[in-house]
Amino acid sequence: MQHGLLLIAGLGCGIAHAQKTSEKDVDQKVEALLSKMSIEEKVGQMTQVTIDLILDDNSLDAIDEKKLKEAILNKKVGSILNVKGSAYTMDTWHKIQKRIQEVATKETPNKIPVLYGIDAIHGANYIEGSTLYPHNIGMAASRNPELVRQSAKLTATETRASGIRWNFDPVLGLGRQPLWSRFEETFGEDVHLVTAMGTAAIKGYEEDGLKSPTAVASCMKHYLGYSIPASGKDRTPAYIPEYTLREYLLPPFKSAVDAGTSTVMINSGEINGVPVHASKYLLTDLLRGELGFEGVAVSDWEDVIRLHTRHKVADTPKEAVRLAVEAGLDMSMVPYDYSFYDLLLELVKEGAISESRIDESVRRIIKLKYKLGLFDNPFPEKAALAKVDPKKSQEVALNAARETITLLKNEKSVLPLKKGAKVLVAGPAANNLTSLHSSWSYVWQGNDDRQYPKSTLTIKEGLEAKLGKGNVISAAQRDYNHAANFDAGQLKKDAASVDYIVLCLGEDAYAETPGNIDDLTLDSKQLALASAAMATGKPVILVLVEGRPRVISSIENDIPGILLAYRPSTMGAQAIAEVLTGEYNPNGILPYTYPKHTGDLIKYDHKYTEGIREDEPNTYTNGAYRPQWAFGHGLSYTTFEFSNLKADKATFSAGEKLNLTVTVKNTGKRAGKVTVELYSRDLFASITPNFKRLRKFEKIELAAGASKQVSFTVSPEELAFINAQGKKVTEPGTFEFIVKDQVVSVEYKTGQEN
Amino acid sequence: MQHGLLLIAGLGCGIAHAQKTSEKDVDQKVEALLSKMSIEEKVGQMTQVTIDLILDDNSLDAIDEKKLKEAILNKKVGSILNVKGSAYTMDTWHKIQKRIQEVATKETPNKIPVLYGIDAIHGANYIEGSTLYPHNIGMAASRNPELVRQSAKLTATETRASGIRWNFDPVLGLGRQPLWSRFEETFGEDVHLVTAMGTAAIKGYEEDGLKSPTAVASCMKHYLGYSIPASGKDRTPAYIPEYTLREYLLPPFKSAVDAGTSTVMINSGEINGVPVHASKYLLTDLLRGELGFEGVAVSDWEDVIRLHTRHKVADTPKEAVRLAVEAGLDMSMVPYDYSFYDLLLELVKEGAISESRIDESVRRIIKLKYKLGLFDNPFPEKAALAKVDPKKSQEVALNAARETITLLKNEKSVLPLKKGAKVLVAGPAANNLTSLHSSWSYVWQGNDDRQYPKSTLTIKEGLEAKLGKGNVISAAQRDYNHAANFDAGQLKKDAASVDYIVLCLGEDAYAETPGNIDDLTLDSKQLALASAAMATGKPVILVLVEGRPRVISSIENDIPGILLAYRPSTMGAQAIAEVLTGEYNPNGILPYTYPKHTGDLIKYDHKYTEGIREDEPNTYTNGAYRPQWAFGHGLSYTTFEFSNLKADKATFSAGEKLNLTVTVKNTGKRAGKVTVELYSRDLFASITPNFKRLRKFEKIELAAGASKQVSFTVSPEELAFINAQGKKVTEPGTFEFIVKDQVVSVEYKTGQEN
Repeated sequence: MQHGLLLIAGLGCGIAHAQKTSEKDVDQKVEALLSKMSIEEKVGQMTQVTIDLILDDNSLDAIDEKKLKEAILNKKVGSILNVKGSAYTMDTWHKIQKRIQEVATKETPNKIPVLYGIDAIHGANYIEGSTLYPHNIGMAASRNPELVRQSAKLTATETRASGIRWNFDPVLGLGRQPLWSRFEETFGEDVHLVTAMGTAAIKGYEEDGLKSPTAVASCMKHYLGYSIPASGKDRTPAYIPEYTLREYLLPPFKSAVDAGTSTVMINSGEINGVPVHASKYLLTDLLRGELGFEGVAVSDWEDVIRLHTRHKVADTPKEAVRLAVEAGLDMSMVPYDYSFYDLLLELVKEGAISESRIDESVRRIIKLKYKLGLFDNPFPEKAALAKVDPKKSQEVALNAARETITLLKNEKSVLPLKKGAKVLVAGPAANNLTSLHSSWSYVWQGNDDRQYPKSTLTIKEGLEAKLGKGNVISAAQRDYNHAANFDAGQLKKDAASVDYIVLCLGEDAYAETPGNIDDLTLDSKQLALASAAMATGKPVILVLVEGRPRVISSIENDIPGILLAYRPSTMGAQAIAEVLTGEYNPNGILPYTYPKHTGDLIKYDHKYTEGIREDEPNTYTNGAYRPQWAFGHGLSYTTFEFSNLKADKATFSAGEKLNLTVTVKNTGKRAGKVTVELYSRDLFASITPNFKRLRKFEKIELAAGASKQVSFTVSPEELAFINAQGKKVTEPGTFEFIVKDQVVSVEYKTGQEN
Repeated sequence: MQHGLLLIAGLGCGIAHAQKTSEKDVDQKVEALLSKMSIEEKVGQMTQVTIDLILDDNSLDAIDEKKLKEAILNKKVGSILNVKGSAYTMDTWHKIQKRIQEVATKETPNKIPVLYGIDAIHGANYIEGSTLYPHNIGMAASRNPELVRQSAKLTATETRASGIRWNFDPVLGLGRQPLWSRFEETFGEDVHLVTAMGTAAIKGYEEDGLKSPTAVASCMKHYLGYSIPASGKDRTPAYIPEYTLREYLLPPFKSAVDAGTSTVMINSGEINGVPVHASKYLLTDLLRGELGFEGVAVSDWEDVIRLHTRHKVADTPKEAVRLAVEAGLDMSMVPYDYSFYDLLLELVKEGAISESRIDESVRRIIKLKYKLGLFDNPFPEKAALAKVDPKKSQEVALNAARETITLLKNEKSVLPLKKGAKVLVAGPAANNLTSLHSSWSYVWQGNDDRQYPKSTLTIKEGLEAKLGKGNVISAAQRDYNHAANFDAGQLKKDAASVDYIVLCLGEDAYAETPGNIDDLTLDSKQLALASAAMATGKPVILVLVEGRPRVISSIENDIPGILLAYRPSTMGAQAIAEVLTGEYNPNGILPYTYPKHTGDLIKYDHKYTEGIREDEPNTYTNGAYRPQWAFGHGLSYTTFEFSNLKADKATFSAGEKLNLTVTVKNTGKRAGKVTVELYSRDLFASITPNFKRLRKFEKIELAAGASKQVSFTVSPEELAFINAQGKKVTEPGTFEFIVKDQVVSVEYKTGQEN
């Protein structure tokens, strides 16, 4: 392996050199172009509008030539985004992209192509018929970054093939506020997990280089602190001390910058009374200064004017523009008018904002356009289209869906369903595509099932395909609002003829603000249906299809089998059916703490004092962490044993690496995958230590009876925390490393600052 | 009045001069004493132990002479606290205090009296038979600071009479985390309200001077941030940005320091990973440096050692002591052993802590003892005992209970009960003293009804006294755990013979950690009882007896009359009966936002973005603030109209005062009290402004048909907020002032920093 490693290192150097040359080359081109541009053109480059502004008012996809020219020629906009109505066909996208670029590159003084951006959040969701992958929350359950990388790459390829080269993805906010409507778009509650998965996504989008037909510019979002609004409502204030910001929220963004993400989208909310779009500290000092980010910073939807209309920190719309640009914004997603263009133009002409300030932003935008090859060929590329492989997409989507599904409970091995089983499939998620997909699925809200590909299966159909139509009974309605309007008599009658009830509950589709809720508990209508199902006396298998953990403690006790599917999307129903029937052995594990009560939301990585119960004084037995299911929980149809966790050193020092090994054995009767998670625990530290923290994970597959040694390498830096001075430090002392029931202690000897 | 005012001012000057002289005199005495003290004596002064350490192991109140001498002579402890078991009689307190002081002042080298401290939280709750006042949360509903002052003064008098001169009260934390078990000890969610009430309490405790027989040293607590633990559980971490700390949490403490509070108790929790007991920033820089506090800082229960055992920031118990003392702690409530004494002694002898550092603390402690007159007479004072006036205490307690009770709902004027009404009194709070009193009532948990004075009435008994025994039916059990175990048939039968069901629900007594809950919703057993009561068809009047707002939205809709009693204590039942029967016209208004859903906890003073609903875009119509009942809500049996809100200036500038007037008219048929609340709203500011903020309030009484003009004076400083640089500023711009439905706009012209 030594040779191979050297070879790769050598190649790496070559690539770095080539990149550097091309970077310099691009910089020269950018400066040359910049020197020719008018203030109007510069301001236009910083302006992004929605596609509605260039379409015929009465059409969903026909360009209005007059409006297009108003946008490109008069207002000189540099970027357009979004879709109107629902997903377009490839042909429609081509037609639109082609026409936009024709005007931009043929009729403008400097022939600057337009950068089109899109929300392709879990697949190329605005391309008709595209395959959608499980939402991030499920991807995180898979603990398989390779699936994230693959699905991002396939998404990039399809998006690029449509003519679009900028994707507003991935979400890097931590899923620690379960009420939040965008929880499903996160990779869960843990810093390391979000970092690993987020970096994998950026790799998938950009690893081949931005000129490649399989790449799009990625967009780390939403910088910073968007995911933990105090109220739980979308786009509402967060109160975040510097400690939380740096210890929990910043690391995924830091890694994304290091991984080379091209753009960033700003948090629509406010932190400590400062809207992030107006925060020079966050947008310039921290993002540019500390993280060293050199890419494009784009606002979120309408967020500049909202500094005036909603946040009330700007007493005029013009002051809102000034605040955002001075804070460090490069591009405003205006998107419904040209107010940003008009006002910024005024500000620059009046000298309220310097031309050199906007040059910084325009430089970044133009540079990105060069790097994406838009100056070489702004039109949809045949090479990209040729790379689109729907079969491969479906394969990856199916693998992903399989690995996300999390078996939460399996009392007396009620699952898998016995051979030849007859089932009653009930609940609003049973015969429902929108539930399986949710946000960003062909339409923004994902709630229009007419837009879904005909081939996509519901859970009921997935089960029919496995068990045979004759073995599946279902009168399930897909209307969550009427979940309680079932015929109890009919339910009982139907149940009499089956072996199991597969009860599909959860949440219908939603995205962003419309997904706001006031109570984490599963709604009473569905709970009533669950009670009725249990009252039939038949074993109930609960399949939860939901973007966030809805509290089910009032029914959980009486349900022997519970499967959590998250938002598994296109191949979800098939994967669920495979797991229910035992064709696939589940291996997803929770990427968050599943709460048991609405008022008990402590996370797995809580501080010691949150784990202490008064009846277990002065211990860290973690008795107060008693969620419905813990972070990392997930069952298999086989069993695994962990043994012999060892460290290669009893003490280690700065500059040294620690190697930890553990043996995992499949002690059951069938092959299965299992994620080995390594946690650490700092026994004492100057900042109250976490009870434990995930440091590494690796997913392996083991045949029945097989065992394997898994090793992890840990550096002192990876055990660091943010101290009271805001610095990342690893302090000397004892660390415990934990893999399941295995614990080993290691002494770290030298204090150091990283 | 002019003369009177001048006279008072003249007197004030005289007092100030006299105080200054005596202060200097005290300082000289302190220094003289300090110079004679050994390190052991100094460390002993910083040590506070619980009374258990000086009592016979097998007794609740008998001093063990050997143990007493171990404490006072060997360990030289300077302070003792608490009660063992339950409240003591005056005689017992005298016996104990006398003996402690005899040993301290006769058998020690420097004859330093002991400073005894107690938790007299809502009355002299550890004196047998004492009258208890409503808990702070209800006091805040009264909007009557005079009641707070009076009850504090009466508490001080009784406490002083028992021989104790230090009371660990008032709580100045904001009640913004409704899950928190000490919510009932707060004055609610608003900064101004907490400040006004907290300052009134300090006045009541100390206004006559610490040597007075009607005074005790007050203790502002718990400094700082204790009341908003992230998890809702007591003594768990809070995450608080500097903005929140200074804008919301600090002002009540700042005012308390300005009002001259003698001592402070430290928050047991941690903020941003730093236990407050180990925070030099909070305990020294902010408390001493910025706030200018010169009094004694005492730890909370066992919190020094917990830096090691729970927070894990100290790797040894000794390091825990070093951290706390270096952070700025003056006295450790150890309280179960002498470890603090032993370890601090070692640290000083080793030079790890300087003698000059401990001198600072000892100086403060000794000085307080001088100021309290303990060096003149350390024994229980006859003059104090002579001032105890149980009748007056009961009168104030009754007035307070009356003014706290908040009529939340009164559909079709279901209340007051019609003359000669027959009622069924049901629910676990109906015949229950502990519920009415809760924490700190004769025992710590307030949960032992054998300890309550025989004369204290339950709600059922209160109603019997008003309606006659024959008109009250009740089979209510006081067991909350079995609230659902009622006989539905009997309930229906009983209901048939009455005009109303008075359903008394809520929470049983709790204090601190044992009061932790996981769900804000009222428990399902009580909800089931409510459903059964409603099913009888008789009008249900709900009396809520609870320390925090338990969610009742699932039953509220079908209940025509709802009364919130908080924790009204000794005279609570009588006051409730007076309100139900109409003998007293209710006037309490909510000191917090009563939530409708567990996941919707925004406060009245939320930011604009939290009030916006997507269906009401770009407005501040506050559509998203839709709690069960808003902050300030509370009904009366009469009606009031507000009109003619005016400002005396259209614009005002720095240094100017604004005078606002509003006319209030009693438009109903009976006399009543009403609180006039003045709110302000900053239309734009550099930190996102609050939707509104309470700035002033005044409670007035109006006869039927009468009207009155109420005026408020507002200075620019009172409209200030904490800006991004952490400074308090009033920025120029438009302010709206609001009284009920009246709004007036005023322009503030000159920006200034306060």
